[in-house]
Amino acid sequence: MDKNELKYIQSFAQKKHWLQESVYLIEGPKLLEEALKSNVELKKIYATRDWLGSNDIGGVEFEEVDEIMLSRLSQLQTANQVIALVYKKDVQKTDYSKQLTLVLDGIQDPGNLGTIIRTADWFGIHHILVTEDTASMYNPKVIQSTMGSCFRVQVQVADIEQILSQNTLPVIGTLLSGKSIYEAVIPVTGFLVIGNESKGIRSGIQTSITHPVSIPKFGEAESLNAAVATGIVLSKWKMQ
Amino acid sequence: MDKNELKYIQSFAQKKHWLQESVYLIEGPKLLEEALKSNVELKKIYATRDWLGSNDIGGVEFEEVDEIMLSRLSQLQTANQVIALVYKKDVQKTDYSKQLTLVLDGIQDPGNLGTIIRTADWFGIHHILVTEDTASMYNPKVIQSTMGSCFRVQVQVADIEQILSQNTLPVIGTLLSGKSIYEAVIPVTGFLVIGNESKGIRSGIQTSITHPVSIPKFGEAESLNAAVATGIVLSKWKMQ
Repeated sequence: MDKNELKYIQSFAQKKHWLQESVYLIEGPKLLEEALKSNVELKKIYATRDWLGSNDIGGVEFEEVDEIMLSRLSQLQTANQVIALVYKKDVQKTDYSKQLTLVLDGIQDPGNLGTIIRTADWFGIHHILVTEDTASMYNPKVIQSTMGSCFRVQVQVADIEQILSQNTLPVIGTLLSGKSIYEAVIPVTGFLVIGNESKGIRSGIQTSITHPVSIPKFGEAESLNAAVATGIVLSKWKMQ
Repeated sequence: MDKNELKYIQSFAQKKHWLQESVYLIEGPKLLEEALKSNVELKKIYATRDWLGSNDIGGVEFEEVDEIMLSRLSQLQTANQVIALVYKKDVQKTDYSKQLTLVLDGIQDPGNLGTIIRTADWFGIHHILVTEDTASMYNPKVIQSTMGSCFRVQVQVADIEQILSQNTLPVIGTLLSGKSIYEAVIPVTGFLVIGNESKGIRSGIQTSITHPVSIPKFGEAESLNAAVATGIVLSKWKMQ
């Protein structure tokens, strides 16, 4: 591997590259397995001889690397057999009226965003819209924590205030003043807005909420983790 | 501050100190606020002049430190005004027949454990039993991610296999083969076992499960995050 290629892959540690590049970085056998069976397109695989010997990568370009080179390429504390560059998918046009679309307002923790993407995938949600100040889904920490759901769920940065204010579909949002999810009927289609854990949902988005809901508290914790809250609301939505 | 005291506080970065010491480390204004209004006993507070000037710490021993010293004491990437040593509470005898007790089997990610403790606190759970291979609740990463719930929820390492096999209360456990939580009636009192995300619940504990339940999957994700699963099951438990 030449120096430029090495530097290029290492550059995915930097935020600006998550936005600028047409590809993103994935690591480890589990994520590679998910990528290879999904419909994403891989640009190149860098892997140990062992991994290459026991995996069918079709016609994807690859390079065999030793453990030392792998650890130089890796963003993880412990590199794990394989790293790959994956092409970002084009944003697909979506008919919002036929589905529940998740909307994330200022979810800044990468692990949390990854867990939310995975939770959405569990409940059959295919589209997530996020505010610009939400963590980047191409942050390697987000990608890793989705455990493959990043290949199935479309995450799109969007002008949420504008989209919601111009739409006529139900907008569900978790607000302290909302109706208990145990009493509320949660619309089957529309938008579900999850806010930042400490700041909640910004006022420009709150004004579009047609169905304010809340998760009743029975103990003392000040708030629920955003991914946990997402799971609880989606579970209630599905069980109706 | 003398060198020994500095070294002592820094030693809480090491796992062995979480177990050995009678105290643990907490950081930041939010956690200090929660500690001061809870019934935990603080050994000593190290804080900036600003923080000390605007907080009532009662009779707790304290030392004013500057930002540089604070960053040397801190386990966080960015030290935040105050650090304190808190005495561990003695384990209280518990009447398991009168409550739902959460049981964690091999939850190894510290952030996940912290989020589970916080979720338990939200739903009014006061006791958590954990296997020895679960992350230590005195790991600073766990403490910080509980956001104060660590002061209200008792987390105890225990011989889970023995406790469950000798008890006659319902034992709820999430198993792939379990009855859908949307159809199952979840007992009000007893034990709720949450397993490791990839390995599930170990067989020595599975044999004690009287109420196997599952969270139905509507999409493609292979598994749910353990904290999200905990929240979903506890939410269903409360809404019955």
